[in-house]
Amino acid sequence: MPLDLDSYVSGFVDGEGCFCVSFQPSVRHALGWEVRPSFSVSQNADRAQVLHVLQQRWGCGSIRPDRSDNTLKFEVRNLSELAGAVLPHFEKYPLVSAKQVDFDLFKEICQRMQRGEHRTASGFGKIVEAAMRMNSSGKRKYSSSEILNSLTVR
Amino acid sequence: MPLDLDSYVSGFVDGEGCFCVSFQPSVRHALGWEVRPSFSVSQNADRAQVLHVLQQRWGCGSIRPDRSDNTLKFEVRNLSELAGAVLPHFEKYPLVSAKQVDFDLFKEICQRMQRGEHRTASGFGKIVEAAMRMNSSGKRKYSSSEILNSLTVR
Repeated sequence: MPLDLDSYVSGFVDGEGCFCVSFQPSVRHALGWEVRPSFSVSQNADRAQVLHVLQQRWGCGSIRPDRSDNTLKFEVRNLSELAGAVLPHFEKYPLVSAKQVDFDLFKEICQRMQRGEHRTASGFGKIVEAAMRMNSSGKRKYSSSEILNSLTVR
Repeated sequence: MPLDLDSYVSGFVDGEGCFCVSFQPSVRHALGWEVRPSFSVSQNADRAQVLHVLQQRWGCGSIRPDRSDNTLKFEVRNLSELAGAVLPHFEKYPLVSAKQVDFDLFKEICQRMQRGEHRTASGFGKIVEAAMRMNSSGKRKYSSSEILNSLTVR
């Protein structure tokens, strides 16, 4: 069978996937904010086969029902799994659309986090700046200045 | 580059594509109804690169703005182009999800039309029956009985 499943996954994700970096106020984190990178793909429950292909192929991620509608969501939030499975996939099988720009920023953020840069105010600032350039059509809960002006710098 | 663009296209279509067969009352057609198969993929205008890949790769189809929102739609409606480019692609690079069931029905309908079966009441009936089993989550303008009970049988 000539179908290349890795390329297929990239095509599917180009349409349906989301590289997302969100920020949450957090008393558990030194700077007062947590950065949360995640990769997710949602699909109608009655044709969610590809989500299971993703989970099996990458050996990570969860598949859960979305509260809001009749969809299932495959999600990877663990940084080691993002760096170990998700990033290498899209380095080898890149996206054809402009969503590749989001991937490049997502990769930059994950790599900065792997180096621990999110634990310093200046590193966190660079992560916020990169995240704000992602998914330009989406809405953000907190603006760049709301986050950066409220960092707890000790 | 290891990316296989044909497999990528199938993955993209698995998420974003639509195999559709609609019916319209038509005084120009002997039976009083026209059957219209179409393949389409819509995408946000700012990342519509894959639509152009499809058009170039298959050498057919149109790309037009969707009136309702800021999307572009790639569409193939011509039966010869459907049979010559779209069907062979998905025979060689099949869909992984249950959307493959829609493709199989779509293919059956296109092949019946190529044999001219839609010009007889019994052939048209078989096409209506196959179409009604497609895209079960969608809404249909006309029911099977509305169409079949109003065929102009001469």
